[in-house]
Amino acid sequence: MVGGGKDAFIGGVHRIALRLDGHYELVAGSFSSNFANSKETGEKIGIAQDRIYETYKEMAEKEASRSDGIDVVSIVTPNHLHVPVAKIFADKGINIICDKPLALTSKEAVELKKTIENNKLIFALTHNYTGYPMIRHARFLIQKGDLGSIRVVQAEYPQDWLTTKLEDSGLKQAEWRTDPNRSGGGGCIGDIGTHAFNLIRFISGLEVDELSADIHTFVKGRLLDDNAQIMLRFKGDAKGAIWSSQVAVGNENSLQIRVYGEKAGLEWKQEDPNYLHFTKFGHPTQRITRGGSGASDEANQITRIPPGHPEGYLEGFANIYSDVSRELFAKINNQNYDNSKNCYPTINDGIEGMKFIEAVLKSSKNNSKWTRFE
Amino acid sequence: MVGGGKDAFIGGVHRIALRLDGHYELVAGSFSSNFANSKETGEKIGIAQDRIYETYKEMAEKEASRSDGIDVVSIVTPNHLHVPVAKIFADKGINIICDKPLALTSKEAVELKKTIENNKLIFALTHNYTGYPMIRHARFLIQKGDLGSIRVVQAEYPQDWLTTKLEDSGLKQAEWRTDPNRSGGGGCIGDIGTHAFNLIRFISGLEVDELSADIHTFVKGRLLDDNAQIMLRFKGDAKGAIWSSQVAVGNENSLQIRVYGEKAGLEWKQEDPNYLHFTKFGHPTQRITRGGSGASDEANQITRIPPGHPEGYLEGFANIYSDVSRELFAKINNQNYDNSKNCYPTINDGIEGMKFIEAVLKSSKNNSKWTRFE
Amino acid sequence: MVGGGKDAFIGGVHRIALRLDGHYELVAGSFSSNFANSKETGEKIGIAQDRIYETYKEMAEKEASRSDGIDVVSIVTPNHLHVPVAKIFADKGINIICDKPLALTSKEAVELKKTIENNKLIFALTHNYTGYPMIRHARFLIQKGDLGSIRVVQAEYPQDWLTTKLEDSGLKQAEWRTDPNRSGGGGCIGDIGTHAFNLIRFISGLEVDELSADIHTFVKGRLLDDNAQIMLRFKGDAKGAIWSSQVAVGNENSLQIRVYGEKAGLEWKQEDPNYLHFTKFGHPTQRITRGGSGASDEANQITRIPPGHPEGYLEGFANIYSDVSRELFAKINNQNYDNSKNCYPTINDGIEGMKFIEAVLKSSKNNSKWTRFE
Amino acid sequence: MVGGGKDAFIGGVHRIALRLDGHYELVAGSFSSNFANSKETGEKIGIAQDRIYETYKEMAEKEASRSDGIDVVSIVTPNHLHVPVAKIFADKGINIICDKPLALTSKEAVELKKTIENNKLIFALTHNYTGYPMIRHARFLIQKGDLGSIRVVQAEYPQDWLTTKLEDSGLKQAEWRTDPNRSGGGGCIGDIGTHAFNLIRFISGLEVDELSADIHTFVKGRLLDDNAQIMLRFKGDAKGAIWSSQVAVGNENSLQIRVYGEKAGLEWKQEDPNYLHFTKFGHPTQRITRGGSGASDEANQITRIPPGHPEGYLEGFANIYSDVSRELFAKINNQNYDNSKNCYPTINDGIEGMKFIEAVLKSSKNNSKWTRFE
Repeated sequence: MVGGGKDAFIGGVHRIALRLDGHYELVAGSFSSNFANSKETGEKIGIAQDRIYETYKEMAEKEASRSDGIDVVSIVTPNHLHVPVAKIFADKGINIICDKPLALTSKEAVELKKTIENNKLIFALTHNYTGYPMIRHARFLIQKGDLGSIRVVQAEYPQDWLTTKLEDSGLKQAEWRTDPNRSGGGGCIGDIGTHAFNLIRFISGLEVDELSADIHTFVKGRLLDDNAQIMLRFKGDAKGAIWSSQVAVGNENSLQIRVYGEKAGLEWKQEDPNYLHFTKFGHPTQRITRGGSGASDEANQITRIPPGHPEGYLEGFANIYSDVSRELFAKINNQNYDNSKNCYPTINDGIEGMKFIEAVLKSSKNNSKWTRFE
Repeated sequence: MVGGGKDAFIGGVHRIALRLDGHYELVAGSFSSNFANSKETGEKIGIAQDRIYETYKEMAEKEASRSDGIDVVSIVTPNHLHVPVAKIFADKGINIICDKPLALTSKEAVELKKTIENNKLIFALTHNYTGYPMIRHARFLIQKGDLGSIRVVQAEYPQDWLTTKLEDSGLKQAEWRTDPNRSGGGGCIGDIGTHAFNLIRFISGLEVDELSADIHTFVKGRLLDDNAQIMLRFKGDAKGAIWSSQVAVGNENSLQIRVYGEKAGLEWKQEDPNYLHFTKFGHPTQRITRGGSGASDEANQITRIPPGHPEGYLEGFANIYSDVSRELFAKINNQNYDNSKNCYPTINDGIEGMKFIEAVLKSSKNNSKWTRFE
Repeated sequence: MVGGGKDAFIGGVHRIALRLDGHYELVAGSFSSNFANSKETGEKIGIAQDRIYETYKEMAEKEASRSDGIDVVSIVTPNHLHVPVAKIFADKGINIICDKPLALTSKEAVELKKTIENNKLIFALTHNYTGYPMIRHARFLIQKGDLGSIRVVQAEYPQDWLTTKLEDSGLKQAEWRTDPNRSGGGGCIGDIGTHAFNLIRFISGLEVDELSADIHTFVKGRLLDDNAQIMLRFKGDAKGAIWSSQVAVGNENSLQIRVYGEKAGLEWKQEDPNYLHFTKFGHPTQRITRGGSGASDEANQITRIPPGHPEGYLEGFANIYSDVSRELFAKINNQNYDNSKNCYPTINDGIEGMKFIEAVLKSSKNNSKWTRFE
Repeated sequence: MVGGGKDAFIGGVHRIALRLDGHYELVAGSFSSNFANSKETGEKIGIAQDRIYETYKEMAEKEASRSDGIDVVSIVTPNHLHVPVAKIFADKGINIICDKPLALTSKEAVELKKTIENNKLIFALTHNYTGYPMIRHARFLIQKGDLGSIRVVQAEYPQDWLTTKLEDSGLKQAEWRTDPNRSGGGGCIGDIGTHAFNLIRFISGLEVDELSADIHTFVKGRLLDDNAQIMLRFKGDAKGAIWSSQVAVGNENSLQIRVYGEKAGLEWKQEDPNYLHFTKFGHPTQRITRGGSGASDEANQITRIPPGHPEGYLEGFANIYSDVSRELFAKINNQNYDNSKNCYPTINDGIEGMKFIEAVLKSSKNNSKWTRFE
C-alpha cells in the first residue's frame, strides 16, 4: 500500500476492504511521505520492519526484486500522486488497485494506460459504489432490457462537510481536497461528481455525448468548486443531470441515482443501499432487497448475508477488491480467466472520469456552453 | 365557476376547496363550452337553473347585473381561456380566482394585470402548493434568517402519466395538456415546471436572474415537451436547478424542494407534505410536523387538525381559497384590510410564470444559452 | 349537530367532513351545554337564529316537528352524552351519525340499538379510519383471499400528548378524556384503543375470541389508563396484539396495522395513509398507492384526486359521511337501497367497541387473565 | 473455530467479523462433525492441515498443548453443542466467544458459568445487535438520564422465512432451528426473541420482573413455536412487549426497539441501523446519524467510516469481536485492563436469555399466567 498513513481516511477503508473477504494480505507499505508516520502506521498494523519503506520508489524496486514480493499495490494517496506512483509500480510489472479520481489530467491518464497495457497489468480503480449489490442488480435490469430504451438519468451527490472553510482548521482531508495542486482542477466535481458520473455509466451503459456545466465556489477564499450543476446529453436520445455539492446542509453522502426508461424506472440511494425501487410502468413500485426475492445472480454473488441484515459501504468496497482478486489469482497462477464478466472499474473508467472533469471545467469557463468530451 | 364540467379534473378540486372551510357558496357557472355538459354538471351540484349559463360572457353580464351576483369567479378552463375569461369578468368588476398557468404569453398576462389593477380587483392564482402549512413554515424559517444567505435551491417535479402517448387515447386531460393551442408553448414546463418555479420563489424569496434550459419530447409525435432540465442563477449569489418530467416511470406527483443556506438546509416533499426536514449545520436533522412542536404561527393558522393526522392536497388548495376569502370578505363589506400578510399567489406570480416558460423555451431554442427574463 | 362548540376539536372535524363532498348542509345545532357558547358557534357558521337550541332535547323536539327538519343529527359531545342524546333523537325518528366510543357501557349501547332498530333508523359511528381508501383496499385484498388464512394481526396506536398531566392545565380535550364520568372506564383504551380494535375487525373480518390485557396509568394522579398492552386470540387460529399509549414520546397519531396471512402480508400507517405495503410471500414488497396502479374499485370509489396528491384525515372522515349520505338520500326519497355494500361502522361496531373496553378492564383487573367478550 | 462448515451461515459471519478489524487470525478449527466437510472448509480458508481437527475435543487438547495454541475459540455450532464445546475448551483454559442462545437450559448455563469463573476466562456471547453504534448511543442517552424514568419498551423481531415448512426442504438452517433436540425448547423465541430481549436489557438497563406469554405454532407439523406475543413488567414501574415471528410475510429481519421515558423517546430499526430517532417531549424528532452530529463517544469508538456511508450487520458483529480483543490482548500480555467499560454480552446475558426462554415457555403453558424469572 502506498499512502494511508495516520490521519488519512481512505487508506483505512482500503485495508478493511482487502481484509474483509480474506483474499488479500497486506505485507508491505510506504504509508506516508513522512517516514516516521509511515513506520508508526506499518508497525501498528503488523507490517514487517523491512517492508515499511521510506519512499514508494524504494518500495517498488525492493518488492519487485523479492521472490515473495507483492502481487498488487494499493494506491491511496492524494490525487496528484496516483499517476506518478502507478507508473513506478507499473514499470516494475506490479498490478495496481488505485483510488479515484485517476489523475490530474486525461493526458497523463492516457499515458499511464499505455504502460499498463504494455505490461499486461491488472488495473482497478476503486469507484467503490459500483460494488453495491443493488447497483449490480440495477445494471442487470437495464442490460436485460427491463427499462426499455433509457430516457432520463438523474444523479446527485450532495454533502455538507465543506459548508464552512474547514480547510483552514488543519483537517488534512479538507486541506488536500481543496488544493488544486493535490486534487487537480476539480473540487467537488473531482471528489464526488466523478462518482455520480461513473455510476451513471456503470448502471445505464450510456456514454455522455456533451454536457453543460455551471460550477461555483460558495465558500470565500476556497480555491476549487464546492457546488456543480451539470446537464447531460447522452449518445442516443437520453438526457440527464448531475448535481454535486459539498455545501448542502443536512446531507452526509446522499449519492442517489434514478434511471427512467420507456418501460420502467428505478431509484437507488447510497445511504439506504440494500434496497432498489423498481417500477414497471402501470404497476406498483417494488422494493427489491439485497439477497431477497427477485435479486439477480449478479447481485447475489457479491452478497454475504441474508436480506434484512444490512451490508454497507465497506462491503461494497470489499466487493471491488474481491472482484479483482479472482483475476489476480488466475494471473498469478497462470490460469485461464474469462474477463468478460469483469465489472470492476478500470483505467478506462479513470480516463472517462478525467474527461468528465475537463469537460465540466471547460463548459463552465465558457458560460455553460455544451461541451463534448475530447 | 367557468370550466369544470364533466370529465374535467381541476374543477372538482376547486369545488371541494371552496367548500371545505365554509367560506364560499357556489351559485352560478358556465361549466363547459358544451351547454348540455354544463347543465348536467350544474344541476348535479345544485346550481339554480337560471344561473347555469351557456357562455361565460353571458354569465359575466348577467351575474354583474344581479343584486345577488357572484362576488368572485373561479376560472378552471384549459390554459388558453384563462385570460379571455378573466378579462370579461374583470371588465364587469368581478374578482377572480384563476387556475395556473395564467396565460399563453407574458404579454397577455401583463395586459390582464392592467385591467385587474384599474378595476381594483382581487386576483388569485391557484399555485396550490403554496397552501401547504409546511411550505409556509419553510418560507417563515428563511424570512427569519435561519438559513442565512441562501446558496442552492434544487426543485423537481417528476410524473409518469405521459410515459406513453396518452393523448391519443381520448383522455381529455392528456389531450389539451399536450396541445399547443390550448396549453401554450410549454408542455410539462407549463403544467408542472411552473409549480416548481413558483414554489422556489415563494419559499426562498429569490428571483431568477438567468436560466439555461434543455427541454425535450421523448414520446414520438407529441407536440410539447415532456421533460425539462433547467439550471438557474438567482439574483445574488445563489444557484439552483429544476427538473420536471412527465415520463419518469414510478413518479406520481413527486414535487420536491430543497433549500440550502450558509447556516441550515431544509427539504420538503409534496407526497409527504405534513413534514419539513430542517438541519442546522452541525446538528441532527429535525423532523418538523404540521401542527407539532416548532411549527410557526404562519403554518398553524392554515392548519385544521392536530399533528399526526395528515392534511393533504385538498386542504392545501382550500387554504388558498380561504386566504383569499378574508380579503374578499373585507372588500365586500368595505372593511379595512391589511394585505401585508397576504401570501396567496397573485397575477404578478402568474406573469413571472409566463416569463419563466418563455425564458425556458428561448434558452432551449438557443442550445441552452443562459437567458434572462424579459 | 349536538356538541362541537368553541374549543371542541372533533365538532370542527365533523363540520368539515360533512361539507367536503357537498352532500350535507348544516342547518341546526345545540353546540354546547353553555347556550352562549352554542349561540356564538352557531352564528359564526351561519346557522339561523331560531335553529340554535338551548338544549338537545329542545332541538330534537322542534326539528322533528318542522316540515324542513333535519334528516340526520351529528352527535359530537363527550362520550357520556352519546347515548342520552342519541336516544332523544332516535325517539323522534331522526337518523344519527355519532362519534366514538358509542357509550359508557355495552348495556346502554345494546338498549340504544333496540331503539334504533325499532325506529328503522340509520346509525353511523364515526370510526373514521375505516374511511381511508387504502384501508378499504386492505379489506378488499383480505376478502378476496390474497392473504390466505390470516395468522397474525398487530395493531398499535401510540400518542404522546398526555405524557404530562395536561388535564390540570385547563385544556378541555385533556380534561374530559381523563375523567371517568365523561369518558367511561377506559382512558387511552377508549379514546384510541377502540380505533385500533375497530380497524382490526374492519380490515381482517376477524372477531376476537378472548384477550389478555395489562393497562397502566403512568402519570401520577391520572384517573384513567394511559398505556395498554393487549394480547388477542381470534376466533379461528389467528393471534394478535394491540398496544395503545398516550405517553409514548415522539408519537403523534401513529396508528398502524399489520396483517399477516399464509400467503401474503400487508402494512398500513395512518400518518402515511395514501400507501399500502403488500407482500406476497416470496415476492418483493409492493407499494400500492391511493388511486394508483393496482388500487381496487373499493378504494377508488372513495378517492377524489389522482395518486401522488395526498388525501388525509379529513377526507377519510368525509368518506364516512358520504357513505352514509347515499343510504340517507335513498331513505329520504323512499328509494330502494342495496345496503349489502355498506361499509361505514354501525351501532354493532359501537357495541363491540364497548365489549372490548369492558373485556380489557376485566382482564386487567384479573391480572391479565384471558377474558372472553360477554 | 468450532462449527461453521460448508452450508452453515453464522460461521462465515463470524469469520468476516474476526477479520474485519485485523485483531484476530483464524488458525485452527473443527468446522463440522463431518471431517471431510471440516477439512474442505479449513483448506479453503487457509488453515494449516495439522490444525484442522476431527473433533472439538481433539482440538481443545492439542491447541492447549501447543505453545502457539489458540488464545480464544469461537463456537458457532447449533445451540445444543454450545455448552458441551464451551466446557471442553474452558477446562483447558481457553477463552471463548460463543454464538447465542447460550444453552438449552439455564441450569447448564449456570454450571458453565462456574467453570468460566473458576478458570478466569473471558467469555463473550455474540448478541451482535449490541454492536451497532446507534444502539450504544441509545444506551448512552438512557444512562445519561435523557429519557428520565423509563415507562414503556416495545421490541419486536419479525421475519418471514419460516412461513412455509422450509425444514422439509432440506435446508439445514431451517432443520436445526426447528428441531427441539438441537435448538432447545424455544423456536422463534430462542432464535430471535432472545435478541429482542437482550437488546431491551442492553439499551434500557431494565430487568424483567415477570412476563405473560402466548406462543404459537402456525405451520402444521412444526415442532417449535413460530410466533410469540409477550407482555413484560419490569422491575420498577416500566411495562413493555415483545413480538417475535417467523411467519410475518414481508419481514426480513425487522428487529425494532422503541423506548419511552418521562422526558424523551427513542426508536431504532435494525434494517436501517445507522440512524437513531430521538424525541425530547415537546420538541421535533431528531435523526441522529452514526458518526454524525450529536453521536456520543460510546457510539463513535465503534464507528469506522464517516456518516452517510452505511455500516451494517457485519460491522456490528465485528464490533463485538473487537471489543473482546482489547480485553483479550491485555490478558495475553498480562496487562492491567479496566473492564468497567466493557459492554459486550457475557455469560450472564446468556443465562438471562435462558431464563427468558424458560419463563416464556412456562407462562405459555399456564395460559399466559404472569411468570417470574427463576
